[in-house]
Amino acid sequence: MKKFSENLYKKYNQNIFIEKIIVKKKSKFQDILIFNSKYFGKILALDNVLQITEFDHYFYSEMLTHLPMISHGNVKKVLIIGGGDGAIASELLKHKKIKEIFICEIDEDVINLSHKYLKKINHGCLKNSKVNIAIEDASKFIKNNKFKNYFDLIIADRPDPIGPGKNLFKLNFYKDIKNSLTHEGIAVFQNGVPFFQKKELKDTKKYLKSIFKFYGLYLTVVPTYIGGHMALTWASKATDITNTINLNRKIKFIKKLNTKYYTSEIHQSSFHLPQWIKDI
Amino acid sequence: MKKFSENLYKKYNQNIFIEKIIVKKKSKFQDILIFNSKYFGKILALDNVLQITEFDHYFYSEMLTHLPMISHGNVKKVLIIGGGDGAIASELLKHKKIKEIFICEIDEDVINLSHKYLKKINHGCLKNSKVNIAIEDASKFIKNNKFKNYFDLIIADRPDPIGPGKNLFKLNFYKDIKNSLTHEGIAVFQNGVPFFQKKELKDTKKYLKSIFKFYGLYLTVVPTYIGGHMALTWASKATDITNTINLNRKIKFIKKLNTKYYTSEIHQSSFHLPQWIKDI
Repeated sequence: MKKFSENLYKKYNQNIFIEKIIVKKKSKFQDILIFNSKYFGKILALDNVLQITEFDHYFYSEMLTHLPMISHGNVKKVLIIGGGDGAIASELLKHKKIKEIFICEIDEDVINLSHKYLKKINHGCLKNSKVNIAIEDASKFIKNNKFKNYFDLIIADRPDPIGPGKNLFKLNFYKDIKNSLTHEGIAVFQNGVPFFQKKELKDTKKYLKSIFKFYGLYLTVVPTYIGGHMALTWASKATDITNTINLNRKIKFIKKLNTKYYTSEIHQSSFHLPQWIKDI
Repeated sequence: MKKFSENLYKKYNQNIFIEKIIVKKKSKFQDILIFNSKYFGKILALDNVLQITEFDHYFYSEMLTHLPMISHGNVKKVLIIGGGDGAIASELLKHKKIKEIFICEIDEDVINLSHKYLKKINHGCLKNSKVNIAIEDASKFIKNNKFKNYFDLIIADRPDPIGPGKNLFKLNFYKDIKNSLTHEGIAVFQNGVPFFQKKELKDTKKYLKSIFKFYGLYLTVVPTYIGGHMALTWASKATDITNTINLNRKIKFIKKLNTKYYTSEIHQSSFHLPQWIKDI
Protein backbone atom coordinates (compact mmCIF):
# COMPACT_ATOMS: atom_id res chain seq x y z
CA MET A 1 0.00 0.00 0.00
CA LYS A 2 1.24 3.47 -0.83
CA LYS A 3 2.40 5.69 2.00
CA PHE A 4 2.19 9.43 2.58
CA SER A 5 5.64 10.27 3.97
CA GLU A 6 5.56 13.76 5.37
CA ASN A 7 8.33 16.12 4.38
CA LEU A 8 8.46 18.70 7.20
CA TYR A 9 11.48 17.90 9.36
CA LYS A 10 14.80 16.65 8.10
CA LYS A 11 15.41 13.52 10.11
CA TYR A 12 12.00 12.68 11.49
CA ASN A 13 8.63 12.14 9.90
CA GLN A 14 5.27 10.45 10.03
CA ASN A 15 4.06 7.87 7.54
CA ILE A 16 0.36 7.48 6.88
CA PHE A 17 -0.90 4.66 4.71
CA ILE A 18 -3.03 5.93 1.85
CA GLU A 19 -6.29 4.02 1.62
CA LYS A 20 -7.37 5.92 -1.47
CA ILE A 21 -6.20 9.03 -3.32
CA ILE A 22 -9.10 11.41 -3.82
CA VAL A 23 -7.36 14.33 -5.53
CA LYS A 24 -3.82 14.99 -6.67
CA LYS A 25 -3.30 18.33 -8.35
CA LYS A 26 -0.54 20.84 -9.03
CA SER A 27 -2.02 24.27 -8.37
CA LYS A 28 -0.47 27.64 -9.19
CA PHE A 29 1.25 27.59 -5.79
CA GLN A 30 1.68 24.02 -4.60
CA ASP A 31 1.03 20.28 -4.86
CA ILE A 32 -2.37 19.49 -3.43
CA LEU A 33 -3.17 15.99 -2.21
CA ILE A 34 -6.38 14.76 -0.60
CA PHE A 35 -6.51 11.11 0.46
CA ASN A 36 -8.31 8.70 2.75
CA SER A 37 -6.62 7.19 5.83
CA LYS A 38 -7.58 4.60 8.42
CA TYR A 39 -7.07 6.58 11.64
CA PHE A 40 -7.71 10.15 10.52
CA GLY A 41 -10.33 10.00 7.78
CA LYS A 42 -9.69 12.31 4.83
CA ILE A 43 -6.43 14.24 4.89
CA LEU A 44 -5.36 17.38 3.02
CA ALA A 45 -1.63 17.81 2.36
CA LEU A 46 0.12 20.70 0.60
CA ASP A 47 3.62 20.23 -0.81
CA ASN A 48 3.78 16.96 1.11
CA VAL A 49 3.07 18.59 4.49
CA LEU A 50 -0.09 17.51 6.32
CA GLN A 51 -2.53 20.41 6.76
CA ILE A 52 -5.72 18.99 8.21
CA THR A 53 -7.53 15.72 8.88
CA GLU A 54 -11.20 14.96 9.38
CA PHE A 55 -10.81 13.31 12.78
CA ASP A 56 -8.34 15.45 14.71
CA HIS A 57 -8.68 18.96 13.22
CA TYR A 58 -11.13 19.92 15.99
CA PHE A 59 -8.28 19.91 18.50
CA TYR A 60 -6.77 22.73 16.45
CA SER A 61 -9.76 24.56 14.92
CA GLU A 62 -11.73 24.77 18.14
CA MET A 63 -8.81 26.17 20.11
CA LEU A 64 -8.10 28.87 17.52
CA THR A 65 -11.78 29.77 17.37
CA HIS A 66 -13.79 29.33 20.56
CA LEU A 67 -11.10 30.36 23.02
CA PRO A 68 -10.67 33.91 21.64
CA MET A 69 -14.41 34.14 20.79
CA ILE A 70 -15.34 33.38 24.41
CA SER A 71 -12.61 35.67 25.76
CA HIS A 72 -13.77 38.62 23.69
CA GLY A 73 -17.51 38.08 24.11
CA ASN A 74 -18.77 40.33 21.33
CA VAL A 75 -17.09 39.48 18.05
CA LYS A 76 -18.91 40.64 14.92
CA LYS A 77 -16.20 40.71 12.24
CA VAL A 78 -13.52 38.06 11.76
CA LEU A 79 -10.60 37.62 9.41
CA ILE A 80 -9.16 34.16 8.81
CA ILE A 81 -5.70 34.16 7.29
CA GLY A 82 -5.27 30.96 5.31
CA GLY A 83 -7.99 28.55 6.34
CA GLY A 84 -9.09 27.70 2.80
CA ASP A 85 -10.22 24.30 4.04
CA GLY A 86 -13.09 26.04 5.86
CA ALA A 87 -12.59 24.35 9.25
CA ILE A 88 -12.15 27.56 11.22
CA ALA A 89 -15.02 29.33 9.46
CA SER A 90 -17.28 26.38 10.20
CA GLU A 91 -16.51 26.59 13.93
CA LEU A 92 -17.00 30.38 13.88
CA LEU A 93 -20.47 30.04 12.41
CA LYS A 94 -21.59 28.31 15.64
CA HIS A 95 -21.51 31.84 17.11
CA LYS A 96 -24.68 33.50 15.83
CA LYS A 97 -23.49 37.01 16.75
CA ILE A 98 -20.88 36.98 14.02
CA LYS A 99 -21.94 39.11 11.05
CA GLU A 100 -19.01 38.86 8.66
CA ILE A 101 -16.16 36.44 8.07
CA PHE A 102 -13.34 36.99 5.61
CA ILE A 103 -11.19 34.07 4.51
CA CYS A 104 -7.99 35.29 2.89
CA GLU A 105 -6.53 32.27 1.10
CA ILE A 106 -3.82 32.54 -1.51
CA ASP A 107 -4.75 29.39 -3.45
CA GLU A 108 -8.17 29.23 -5.08
CA ASP A 109 -7.77 25.51 -5.74
CA VAL A 110 -7.60 24.86 -1.98
CA ILE A 111 -10.97 26.57 -1.57
CA ASN A 112 -12.61 24.75 -4.46
CA LEU A 113 -11.25 21.29 -3.66
CA SER A 114 -12.06 21.68 0.06
CA HIS A 115 -15.60 22.70 -0.76
CA LYS A 116 -15.96 19.69 -3.01
CA TYR A 117 -14.19 16.98 -0.99
CA LEU A 118 -13.88 18.11 2.66
CA LYS A 119 -17.55 18.65 3.50
CA LYS A 120 -17.15 16.83 6.83
CA ILE A 121 -14.58 19.46 7.79
CA ASN A 122 -16.28 22.63 6.53
CA HIS A 123 -19.97 21.61 6.35
CA GLY A 124 -20.34 23.65 3.18
CA CYS A 125 -19.54 26.91 4.97
CA LEU A 126 -17.35 28.20 2.15
CA LYS A 127 -20.57 29.14 0.34
CA ASN A 128 -22.25 30.61 3.44
CA SER A 129 -23.61 34.14 2.95
CA LYS A 130 -21.64 35.45 5.95
CA VAL A 131 -18.37 34.15 4.49
CA ASN A 132 -16.39 36.33 2.07
CA ILE A 133 -13.50 34.76 0.26
CA ALA A 134 -10.51 36.80 -0.85
CA ILE A 135 -8.02 34.99 -3.08
CA GLU A 136 -4.97 36.97 -2.11
CA ASP A 137 -1.68 36.95 -0.22
CA ALA A 138 -2.80 37.74 3.34
CA SER A 139 0.27 39.86 4.04
CA LYS A 140 -1.01 42.22 1.29
CA PHE A 141 -4.70 41.93 2.16
CA ILE A 142 -4.26 43.35 5.66
CA LYS A 143 -2.48 46.43 4.32
CA ASN A 144 -5.80 47.58 2.83
CA ASN A 145 -6.95 50.82 4.46
CA LYS A 146 -10.53 49.64 4.29
CA PHE A 147 -9.75 47.23 7.11
CA LYS A 148 -8.09 49.68 9.51
CA ASN A 149 -9.40 49.01 13.05
CA TYR A 150 -11.92 46.72 11.42
CA PHE A 151 -11.71 43.17 12.79
CA ASP A 152 -12.72 42.05 16.29
CA LEU A 153 -10.84 38.81 15.75
CA ILE A 154 -8.06 37.79 13.37
CA ILE A 155 -7.19 34.09 13.21
CA ALA A 156 -3.88 33.34 11.51
CA ASP A 157 -4.43 29.75 10.41
CA ARG A 158 -1.09 30.10 8.72
CA PRO A 159 1.11 27.28 7.38
CA ASP A 160 4.69 26.65 8.47
CA PRO A 161 7.13 29.47 7.72
CA ILE A 162 8.41 27.88 4.53
CA GLY A 163 7.57 28.91 0.96
CA PRO A 164 4.90 31.60 0.46
CA GLY A 165 3.92 31.39 4.16
CA LYS A 166 7.18 33.12 5.17
CA ASN A 167 5.67 36.62 4.98
CA LEU A 168 3.16 35.63 7.66
CA PHE A 169 5.94 35.41 10.26
CA LYS A 170 7.64 38.79 9.73
CA LEU A 171 7.57 41.89 11.93
CA ASN A 172 5.59 43.91 9.38
CA PHE A 173 2.90 41.27 9.26
CA TYR A 174 2.27 41.65 13.00
CA LYS A 175 2.21 45.46 12.63
CA ASP A 176 -0.44 45.20 9.92
CA ILE A 177 -2.43 42.81 12.10
CA LYS A 178 -2.40 45.40 14.86
CA ASN A 179 -3.69 48.09 12.51
CA SER A 180 -6.50 45.84 11.29
CA LEU A 181 -7.74 45.03 14.79
CA THR A 182 -10.31 47.02 16.75
CA HIS A 183 -9.11 48.39 20.09
CA GLU A 184 -10.50 45.42 22.01
CA GLY A 185 -9.74 43.03 19.15
CA ILE A 186 -7.77 39.80 19.51
CA ALA A 187 -5.42 38.08 17.10
CA VAL A 188 -4.43 34.41 17.41
CA PHE A 189 -1.69 32.65 15.49
CA GLN A 190 -0.76 29.08 14.63
CA ASN A 191 2.76 28.97 15.99
CA GLY A 192 4.17 25.53 15.30
CA VAL A 193 5.29 22.66 17.48
CA PRO A 194 7.74 23.96 20.09
CA PHE A 195 9.64 20.68 20.36
CA PHE A 196 10.82 21.09 16.76
CA GLN A 197 10.19 24.78 16.07
CA LYS A 198 11.69 26.71 18.99
CA LYS A 199 12.99 29.55 16.85
CA GLU A 200 9.57 30.24 15.36
CA LEU A 201 8.15 30.63 18.85
CA LYS A 202 10.99 32.84 20.12
CA ASP A 203 10.75 35.15 17.10
CA THR A 204 6.99 35.51 17.42
CA LYS A 205 7.28 36.35 21.10
CA LYS A 206 9.90 39.00 20.33
CA TYR A 207 7.73 40.63 17.65
CA LEU A 208 4.47 40.51 19.63
CA LYS A 209 6.20 41.99 22.66
CA SER A 210 7.49 44.90 20.61
CA ILE A 211 4.04 45.74 19.20
CA PHE A 212 1.20 44.70 21.52
CA LYS A 213 0.37 45.57 25.14
CA PHE A 214 -1.02 42.07 25.77
CA TYR A 215 0.32 38.88 24.23
CA GLY A 216 1.04 35.28 25.13
CA LEU A 217 0.95 31.61 24.41
CA TYR A 218 -1.53 28.82 24.89
CA LEU A 219 -1.40 25.17 23.93
CA THR A 220 -3.27 22.47 22.15
CA VAL A 221 -2.41 18.90 21.20
CA VAL A 222 -3.11 17.60 17.71
CA PRO A 223 -1.97 14.02 16.95
CA THR A 224 -1.09 14.62 13.29
CA TYR A 225 0.88 17.80 14.05
CA ILE A 226 3.64 15.55 15.29
CA GLY A 227 5.92 16.59 18.11
CA GLY A 228 3.51 16.83 21.07
CA HIS A 229 2.21 20.23 22.13
CA MET A 230 1.32 22.80 19.50
CA ALA A 231 1.80 26.49 20.32
CA LEU A 232 -0.93 29.02 19.62
CA THR A 233 0.01 32.63 20.27
CA TRP A 234 -2.31 35.57 20.84
CA ALA A 235 -2.08 39.36 21.03
CA SER A 236 -4.30 42.35 21.68
CA LYS A 237 -4.07 46.10 22.22
CA ALA A 238 -6.51 46.14 25.15
CA THR A 239 -7.78 42.63 25.99
CA ASP A 240 -5.96 40.24 28.31
CA ILE A 241 -7.38 36.84 27.44
CA THR A 242 -5.60 35.12 30.33
CA ASN A 243 -8.11 36.85 32.60
CA THR A 244 -10.70 34.09 32.88
CA ILE A 245 -12.74 35.54 35.77
CA ASN A 246 -15.94 35.68 33.71
CA LEU A 247 -15.56 32.21 32.27
CA ASN A 248 -17.90 30.59 34.80
CA ARG A 249 -20.81 32.64 33.52
CA LYS A 250 -20.24 31.24 30.04
CA ILE A 251 -20.17 27.53 30.85
CA LYS A 252 -23.72 26.93 29.62
CA PHE A 253 -22.97 28.64 26.32
CA ILE A 254 -19.72 26.70 25.94
CA LYS A 255 -21.57 23.40 26.40
CA LYS A 256 -23.95 24.35 23.59
CA LEU A 257 -21.02 24.70 21.19
CA ASN A 258 -20.94 20.89 21.19
CA THR A 259 -17.16 20.76 20.92
CA LYS A 260 -14.88 17.74 20.64
CA TYR A 261 -11.84 19.28 22.36
CA TYR A 262 -12.51 22.72 23.86
CA THR A 263 -14.16 22.94 27.30
CA SER A 264 -14.17 25.68 29.94
CA GLU A 265 -11.55 23.70 31.91
CA ILE A 266 -9.36 23.32 28.83
CA HIS A 267 -9.76 27.06 28.20
CA GLN A 268 -8.06 27.76 31.50
CA SER A 269 -5.49 24.99 31.55
CA SER A 270 -4.30 25.70 28.01
CA PHE A 271 -2.41 28.69 29.48
CA HIS A 272 -0.48 26.39 31.84
CA LEU A 273 2.82 25.61 30.18
CA PRO A 274 5.13 22.69 30.88
CA GLN A 275 8.45 23.87 32.27
CA TRP A 276 10.39 23.16 29.06
CA ILE A 277 8.06 25.43 27.07
CA LYS A 278 8.31 28.16 29.72
CA ASP A 279 12.09 27.90 29.35
CA ILE A 280 11.84 28.69 25.62
CA MET B 1 20.83 6.99 6.11
CA LYS B 2 19.09 4.12 7.90
CA LYS B 3 15.70 4.73 9.44
CA PHE B 4 14.02 3.40 12.56
CA SER B 5 10.48 2.67 11.39
CA GLU B 6 8.31 2.04 14.39
CA ASN B 7 6.07 -0.99 14.34
CA LEU B 8 3.25 -0.16 16.78
CA TYR B 9 0.18 0.72 14.72
CA LYS B 10 -0.86 -0.94 11.49
CA LYS B 11 -1.27 1.93 9.09
CA TYR B 12 0.57 4.76 10.78
CA ASN B 13 4.07 5.13 12.14
CA GLN B 14 6.96 7.42 12.89
CA ASN B 15 10.34 7.26 11.16
CA ILE B 16 13.43 8.41 12.97
CA PHE B 17 16.74 8.64 11.15
CA ILE B 18 19.45 6.65 12.88
CA GLU B 19 22.59 8.73 13.35
CA LYS B 20 24.47 5.81 14.89
CA ILE B 21 23.55 2.38 16.22
CA ILE B 22 24.92 1.95 19.74
CA VAL B 23 23.61 -1.54 20.61
CA LYS B 24 21.60 -4.13 18.74
CA LYS B 25 20.94 -7.31 20.70
CA LYS B 26 18.47 -10.17 20.80
CA SER B 27 17.75 -10.80 24.49
CA LYS B 28 15.85 -13.73 26.00
CA PHE B 29 12.64 -11.75 25.55
CA GLN B 30 13.00 -9.22 22.76
CA ASP B 31 15.09 -7.31 20.22
CA ILE B 32 16.88 -4.47 21.95
CA LEU B 33 18.06 -1.45 19.97
CA ILE B 34 19.78 1.67 21.27
CA PHE B 35 20.65 4.37 18.73
CA ASN B 36 21.45 8.04 18.40
CA SER B 37 19.02 10.51 16.79
CA LYS B 38 19.11 14.18 15.87
CA TYR B 39 16.03 15.46 17.69
CA PHE B 40 15.75 13.06 20.63
CA GLY B 41 19.29 12.06 21.59
CA LYS B 42 19.72 8.37 22.43
CA ILE B 43 16.67 6.17 21.95
CA LEU B 44 15.85 2.73 23.37
CA ALA B 45 13.51 0.54 21.30
CA LEU B 46 12.24 -2.96 22.14
CA ASP B 47 10.85 -5.19 19.38
CA ASN B 48 10.86 -2.14 17.13
CA VAL B 49 8.66 -0.07 19.48
CA LEU B 50 10.14 3.13 20.88
CA GLN B 51 10.41 2.99 24.70
CA ILE B 52 12.31 6.06 25.80
CA THR B 53 14.41 8.93 24.50
CA GLU B 54 16.95 11.15 26.23
CA PHE B 55 15.26 14.44 25.38
CA ASP B 56 11.54 13.87 25.90
CA HIS B 57 11.31 11.13 28.54
CA TYR B 58 10.94 13.75 31.28
CA PHE B 59 7.45 14.56 30.02
CA TYR B 60 6.54 10.96 30.89
CA SER B 61 8.81 10.06 33.82
CA GLU B 62 8.14 13.21 35.80
CA MET B 63 4.37 12.89 35.48
CA LEU B 64 4.39 9.26 36.65
CA THR B 65 6.68 10.15 39.56
CA HIS B 66 6.29 13.62 41.02
CA LEU B 67 2.54 13.94 40.65
CA PRO B 68 1.70 10.94 42.87
CA MET B 69 4.69 11.64 45.17
CA ILE B 70 3.43 15.18 45.83
CA SER B 71 -0.17 14.01 46.18
CA HIS B 72 0.74 11.39 48.79
CA GLY B 73 3.27 13.45 50.70
CA ASN B 74 4.95 10.70 52.68
CA VAL B 75 6.12 7.92 50.39
CA LYS B 76 8.81 5.63 51.80
CA LYS B 77 8.54 2.48 49.69
CA VAL B 78 8.02 2.38 45.94
CA LEU B 79 7.62 -0.38 43.39
CA ILE B 80 8.35 0.33 39.72
CA ILE B 81 6.89 -2.22 37.33
CA GLY B 82 9.05 -2.31 34.23
CA GLY B 83 11.25 0.76 34.23
CA GLY B 84 14.48 -1.11 33.54
CA ASP B 85 15.85 1.99 31.84
CA GLY B 86 16.04 3.67 35.27
CA ALA B 87 14.28 6.92 34.31
CA ILE B 88 11.53 6.66 36.90
CA ALA B 89 13.90 5.55 39.67
CA SER B 90 16.17 8.49 38.91
CA GLU B 91 13.28 10.95 39.31
CA LEU B 92 12.15 9.22 42.51
CA LEU B 93 15.57 9.63 44.09
CA LYS B 94 15.08 13.42 44.05
CA HIS B 95 12.73 12.77 47.00
CA LYS B 96 15.03 12.21 49.95
CA LYS B 97 12.29 10.68 52.13
CA ILE B 98 12.16 7.55 50.00
CA LYS B 99 13.86 4.62 51.72
CA GLU B 100 13.39 1.76 49.31
CA ILE B 101 12.75 1.38 45.59
CA PHE B 102 12.07 -1.93 43.84
CA ILE B 103 12.40 -2.15 40.08
CA CYS B 104 10.71 -5.27 38.77
CA GLU B 105 11.96 -5.72 35.20
CA ILE B 106 11.57 -8.93 33.26
CA ASP B 107 14.61 -8.47 31.03
CA GLU B 108 18.05 -8.31 32.67
CA ASP B 109 19.63 -7.11 29.42
CA VAL B 110 17.49 -3.96 29.52
CA ILE B 111 18.88 -3.16 32.98
CA ASN B 112 22.48 -3.82 32.02
CA LEU B 113 22.42 -2.02 28.68
CA SER B 114 20.56 0.97 30.16
CA HIS B 115 23.10 1.22 32.95
CA LYS B 116 25.91 1.15 30.42
CA TYR B 117 24.52 3.35 27.65
CA LEU B 118 21.64 5.48 29.01
CA LYS B 119 23.44 7.31 31.83
CA LYS B 120 21.87 10.63 30.82
CA ILE B 121 18.49 9.03 31.48
CA ASN B 122 19.17 7.15 34.71
CA HIS B 123 22.21 8.98 36.14
CA GLY B 124 23.61 5.67 37.32
CA CYS B 125 20.69 5.08 39.68
CA LEU B 126 20.39 1.40 38.81
CA LYS B 127 23.35 0.82 41.16
CA ASN B 128 22.04 3.12 43.90
CA SER B 129 21.89 1.51 47.34
CA LYS B 130 18.19 2.38 47.75
CA VAL B 131 17.34 0.63 44.48
CA ASN B 132 16.58 -3.11 44.51
CA ILE B 133 16.31 -4.86 41.19
CA ALA B 134 14.12 -7.93 40.74
CA ILE B 135 14.46 -9.70 37.40
CA GLU B 136 10.99 -11.15 37.26
CA ASP B 137 7.58 -10.99 35.61
CA ALA B 138 5.88 -8.21 37.59
CA SER B 139 2.49 -9.95 37.49
CA LYS B 140 4.13 -12.72 39.58
CA PHE B 141 6.25 -10.45 41.76
CA ILE B 142 3.25 -8.65 43.24
CA LYS B 143 1.61 -11.92 44.28
CA ASN B 144 4.37 -12.33 46.90
CA ASN B 145 2.90 -12.24 50.41
CA LYS B 146 5.95 -10.37 51.64
CA PHE B 147 4.64 -7.29 49.85
CA LYS B 148 1.07 -7.33 51.19
CA ASN B 149 0.08 -3.74 52.15
CA TYR B 150 3.71 -2.84 51.59
CA PHE B 151 4.13 -0.10 48.98
CA ASP B 152 3.15 3.55 49.39
CA LEU B 153 3.46 4.02 45.65
CA ILE B 154 3.40 1.60 42.72
CA ILE B 155 4.34 2.96 39.31
CA ALA B 156 3.38 0.74 36.40
CA ASP B 157 5.85 1.89 33.76
CA ARG B 158 4.43 -0.91 31.66
CA PRO B 159 4.84 -1.40 27.91
CA ASP B 160 1.94 -1.65 25.46
CA PRO B 161 -0.40 -4.61 26.01
CA ILE B 162 1.27 -6.77 23.40
CA GLY B 163 3.64 -9.70 24.02
CA PRO B 164 4.71 -10.39 27.62
CA GLY B 165 3.24 -7.05 28.76
CA LYS B 166 -0.32 -8.41 28.32
CA ASN B 167 -0.52 -9.70 31.90
CA LEU B 168 -0.05 -6.16 33.16
CA PHE B 169 -3.44 -5.15 31.79
CA LYS B 170 -5.63 -7.91 33.27
CA LEU B 171 -8.14 -7.74 36.12
CA ASN B 172 -6.02 -9.93 38.40
CA PHE B 173 -3.06 -7.63 37.98
CA TYR B 174 -5.05 -4.71 39.37
CA LYS B 175 -6.27 -6.86 42.27
CA ASP B 176 -2.70 -7.79 43.18
CA ILE B 177 -1.71 -4.13 42.94
CA LYS B 178 -4.43 -3.29 45.44
CA ASN B 179 -3.17 -5.94 47.85
CA SER B 180 0.40 -4.66 47.60
CA LEU B 181 -0.56 -1.07 48.39
CA THR B 182 -0.76 0.47 51.87
CA HIS B 183 -4.15 1.90 52.83
CA GLU B 184 -3.18 5.42 51.73
CA GLY B 185 -1.03 4.08 48.90
CA ILE B 186 -1.34 5.22 45.27
CA ALA B 187 -0.82 3.30 42.05
CA VAL B 188 -0.24 4.96 38.68
CA PHE B 189 -0.28 3.29 35.28
CA GLN B 190 1.01 4.03 31.81
CA ASN B 191 -2.19 3.74 29.83
CA GLY B 192 -1.40 4.37 26.21
CA VAL B 193 -2.36 7.04 23.72
CA PRO B 194 -6.17 7.44 23.72
CA PHE B 195 -6.34 8.54 20.10
CA PHE B 196 -5.13 5.09 19.01
CA GLN B 197 -5.73 2.96 22.12
CA LYS B 198 -9.30 3.66 23.24
CA LYS B 199 -10.03 0.08 24.26
CA GLU B 200 -7.01 -0.08 26.57
CA LEU B 201 -8.31 2.99 28.39
CA LYS B 202 -11.90 1.75 28.63
CA ASP B 203 -10.82 -1.64 29.98
CA THR B 204 -8.56 -0.09 32.60
CA LYS B 205 -11.33 2.20 33.77
CA LYS B 206 -13.72 -0.74 34.08
CA TYR B 207 -11.23 -2.76 36.15
CA LEU B 208 -10.13 0.11 38.40
CA LYS B 209 -13.76 1.04 39.05
CA SER B 210 -14.55 -2.51 40.16
CA ILE B 211 -11.63 -2.65 42.63
CA PHE B 212 -10.70 0.78 44.00
CA LYS B 213 -12.66 3.46 45.83
CA PHE B 214 -10.68 6.24 44.11
CA TYR B 215 -9.44 6.13 40.54
CA GLY B 216 -9.05 8.34 37.51
CA LEU B 217 -7.12 9.63 34.58
CA TYR B 218 -4.60 12.37 34.01
CA LEU B 219 -2.67 13.40 30.94
CA THR B 220 0.77 14.13 29.66
CA VAL B 221 2.16 14.84 26.19
CA VAL B 222 5.28 13.06 24.94
CA PRO B 223 6.35 13.81 21.35
CA THR B 224 7.73 10.33 20.60
CA TYR B 225 4.68 8.55 21.99
CA ILE B 226 2.90 9.54 18.81
CA GLY B 227 -0.81 10.31 18.78
CA GLY B 228 -1.02 13.40 20.98
CA HIS B 229 -2.12 13.06 24.59
CA MET B 230 -0.91 10.09 26.62
CA ALA B 231 -3.19 8.70 29.33
CA LEU B 232 -1.88 7.98 32.81
CA THR B 233 -4.35 6.29 35.14
CA TRP B 234 -4.27 6.20 38.95
CA ALA B 235 -6.01 4.35 41.76
CA SER B 236 -6.06 4.24 45.56
CA LYS B 237 -8.02 2.69 48.42
CA ALA B 238 -8.13 5.90 50.45
CA THR B 239 -6.40 8.79 48.69
CA ASP B 240 -8.10 11.06 46.18
CA ILE B 241 -5.26 12.64 44.24
CA THR B 242 -7.57 15.02 42.38
CA ASN B 243 -7.90 16.90 45.66
CA THR B 244 -5.20 19.53 45.18
CA ILE B 245 -6.11 21.83 48.06
CA ASN B 246 -2.70 21.44 49.73
CA LEU B 247 -0.73 21.92 46.55
CA ASN B 248 -0.01 25.59 47.20
CA ARG B 249 1.96 24.71 50.32
CA LYS B 250 4.25 22.53 48.22
CA ILE B 251 5.16 24.98 45.48
CA LYS B 252 8.58 25.72 46.93
CA PHE B 253 9.41 22.04 47.16
CA ILE B 254 8.16 21.42 43.61
CA LYS B 255 10.46 24.17 42.28
CA LYS B 256 13.43 22.45 43.91
CA LEU B 257 12.74 19.27 41.95
CA ASN B 258 14.17 21.14 38.98
CA THR B 259 11.78 19.52 36.52
CA LYS B 260 11.56 19.91 32.76
CA TYR B 261 7.82 19.26 32.43
CA TYR B 262 6.02 18.97 35.77
CA THR B 263 4.97 22.16 37.58
CA SER B 264 2.29 22.82 40.21
CA GLU B 265 0.08 24.30 37.48
CA ILE B 266 0.58 21.26 35.26
CA HIS B 267 -0.23 19.05 38.27
CA GLN B 268 -3.69 20.58 38.40
CA SER B 269 -4.40 20.99 34.71
CA SER B 270 -3.35 17.42 33.88
CA PHE B 271 -6.72 16.32 35.30
CA HIS B 272 -8.57 18.54 32.80
CA LEU B 273 -9.54 16.35 29.87
CA PRO B 274 -10.40 17.44 26.35
CA GLN B 275 -14.02 16.61 25.52
CA TRP B 276 -13.12 13.72 23.19
CA ILE B 277 -11.20 11.96 25.98
CA LYS B 278 -14.06 12.55 28.43
CA ASP B 279 -16.33 10.93 25.87
CA ILE B 280 -14.21 7.75 25.93
